[in-house]
Amino acid sequence: MVGTFSYETLFSEDSTDTPLNPVAHAKYDFAVAYPAPETLPMDGLIQALQTAVDSNSEKVLAEMAYYPQQLGALELREYTIEKLKADRGFTVTPEEIALTNGSGEALGLVIQALTNPGDVVLAEEFVYMGTTNQLRRFGADIRGVAIDDGGIITEALDKQITELTAAGEKPKYLYTIPEHQNPTGSTLSGERRKAILEIAHKHGMPILEDDCYVDLRYKGEVQPAFRALDDSGIVVYVASYSKLLAPGLRLGYFTCSPDLMRRALSFKIGSGPNQFAAVAIEGFLKNNLDSHRDNFNPMLEAKCNSMVAALEEQFGDSGATWSFPEGGCYVWLTMPEGADIASIRDEVFEQGVGYVAGPNFEAEASGRIGQNCARLCFAFESVEKNAEGIALLAQLFKQHGVM
Amino acid sequence: MVGTFSYETLFSEDSTDTPLNPVAHAKYDFAVAYPAPETLPMDGLIQALQTAVDSNSEKVLAEMAYYPQQLGALELREYTIEKLKADRGFTVTPEEIALTNGSGEALGLVIQALTNPGDVVLAEEFVYMGTTNQLRRFGADIRGVAIDDGGIITEALDKQITELTAAGEKPKYLYTIPEHQNPTGSTLSGERRKAILEIAHKHGMPILEDDCYVDLRYKGEVQPAFRALDDSGIVVYVASYSKLLAPGLRLGYFTCSPDLMRRALSFKIGSGPNQFAAVAIEGFLKNNLDSHRDNFNPMLEAKCNSMVAALEEQFGDSGATWSFPEGGCYVWLTMPEGADIASIRDEVFEQGVGYVAGPNFEAEASGRIGQNCARLCFAFESVEKNAEGIALLAQLFKQHGVM
Repeated sequence: MVGTFSYETLFSEDSTDTPLNPVAHAKYDFAVAYPAPETLPMDGLIQALQTAVDSNSEKVLAEMAYYPQQLGALELREYTIEKLKADRGFTVTPEEIALTNGSGEALGLVIQALTNPGDVVLAEEFVYMGTTNQLRRFGADIRGVAIDDGGIITEALDKQITELTAAGEKPKYLYTIPEHQNPTGSTLSGERRKAILEIAHKHGMPILEDDCYVDLRYKGEVQPAFRALDDSGIVVYVASYSKLLAPGLRLGYFTCSPDLMRRALSFKIGSGPNQFAAVAIEGFLKNNLDSHRDNFNPMLEAKCNSMVAALEEQFGDSGATWSFPEGGCYVWLTMPEGADIASIRDEVFEQGVGYVAGPNFEAEASGRIGQNCARLCFAFESVEKNAEGIALLAQLFKQHGVM
Repeated sequence: MVGTFSYETLFSEDSTDTPLNPVAHAKYDFAVAYPAPETLPMDGLIQALQTAVDSNSEKVLAEMAYYPQQLGALELREYTIEKLKADRGFTVTPEEIALTNGSGEALGLVIQALTNPGDVVLAEEFVYMGTTNQLRRFGADIRGVAIDDGGIITEALDKQITELTAAGEKPKYLYTIPEHQNPTGSTLSGERRKAILEIAHKHGMPILEDDCYVDLRYKGEVQPAFRALDDSGIVVYVASYSKLLAPGLRLGYFTCSPDLMRRALSFKIGSGPNQFAAVAIEGFLKNNLDSHRDNFNPMLEAKCNSMVAALEEQFGDSGATWSFPEGGCYVWLTMPEGADIASIRDEVFEQGVGYVAGPNFEAEASGRIGQNCARLCFAFESVEKNAEGIALLAQLFKQHGVM
């Protein structure tokens, strides 16, 4: 029988007919969220896999043959613990860390363990849509926290929690990207982090810290992780190897209090994360982390500088402002109030420049703010294309009458 | 602050404190569900990765740099389509197939798209617990379908659906592993499949076909997939590269009608499946599928023969029966009624032989059947250890008074 069976009456009430993400790329693609393909250490990763097999075939084969433990490959967990100790200054045990299919899975698991439909959850007023999509899917009522160039404004946060609590809407937890925030590029100072921790304890509100960009710092001083400043369990720490190595490896991780971790892991679909990628990552990074970062981050800096210089040149007298991040992948462009660059986004994309418009990042999804903002990824295109693309963007904005 | 924050009042209502799976292995481990580590083509997979990078670096790097599409890497989808055409005799388009993190994710996504809490779902009365766990998690009321040595008894299935429908409990869909079933090792004949398809159409009930063992046939004739016998959309087809290559690769796939696929994929947590593993699998299989199977399956057969010969020798006069599968990984041992091998499972494991007791596979989880049954994986241990382990098992059963 051919193509006659209808599922119309059989779909679950929870399911929605969601179109698949399109694959299109603009000529100058600042809409993406990842580094340039040519910077990925593929040869090194493959070499590391081969070395692992050659030097301890039995162990690697056993790892590959078994269905992965929920926590993921022990060697990569142990390596990650060493890395966290060296880079982030805190120590956890192998039982307190779980590898995941990218940090997206880690976030999804923690969100499910902590969120009942209707729960109020706080996040920066512009923040990574992958997380807000998951928050909304599991019923969170997201409220945006006021930010400035330095990230969350601590006094505003405290006031907001107090007011929400008084209104019977006490926030369940705060989601934040403290280092090289997505989309704004801002980094929270150590002082603000300490203040936010105090506020969190005062209100009994956990912090879900997304540290996925920490490895991509090319200048300035790394700031202490929330998790390094607080060992009480109030901080859930999530990070990833996707940005440092390659998104296609799909390897993230999280650490949190053991009871929360057990509950989070109980939401896993299927078994643990990819062992094949885990063996390659552990093998590569244990010998090459520093040299890889020393090679990778100056490239990022040059690309960021090129984009920012082009913005100076092309947008300098437009009234626009932009962030000048110390790491990560994104510059946040803010056009003057009233310049609607969100509604022309698809046309500008067709004309050659891709960006993600502000409303996509609005935590509250009100559709009322961010129309004059855009996230520009500087990490993907070359130094030259960053400059060319920004010049074209200015030209197109003028053409569309928004500049 | 150290270890003082309590999540007690913050966990979601859906969450449960679930202990992590233990990692213990018995001396003779027939409790596992995968082939022997030494049979995994790790060198070949790594070589294939390197070849892919060397021959088309730009393309592979681009694949790795991007966050995977929800459908997964195009090349492996295209390869899988060719494989399905050649091995299973049906054709789908690249848009009709999605790669997943193991077949477990595929099953979880489809289950979520089709199941409302309380929905009745049918499955073989003993069946893979990974699926029944997911079905229960999403609220399915699972009813076991009567089976014999040839799998689902078609008359019983038709009668059961008719009766359930009359009672207002019309089954939503049927989950089945038609080829080398887990745990029984049985294979549905082509005739039974045709009959089941007729029953499915008569009752408007989709079939969720789990074909994850089809590549592991070492004798007899491969039977047509449900999906090959029916192009109407009533069959959802799920399969995996975990059994053929390595569980640690975590690569499965499914194909179904486009509207169901969109809804299923909308339940994904995080982004698509591992591109790194996908590149290796596609590169390896396009040149080595036949030689790998020609090498792998005779080993499986020798291991199966060894286990079955040992059962003949050790259990021949015990009144026990066992399956003699034509492929897959499992022999299903049925001791005489009243021999409770489920309650002594942990002790026997400590004494050296691992198996999974029947009640773990009971679709209805009533706890009333299967106490005299066990799944024995013959694929993991060597030919020699299969024989030794079965001899020890007989000795231990006698010691425990169940034989």
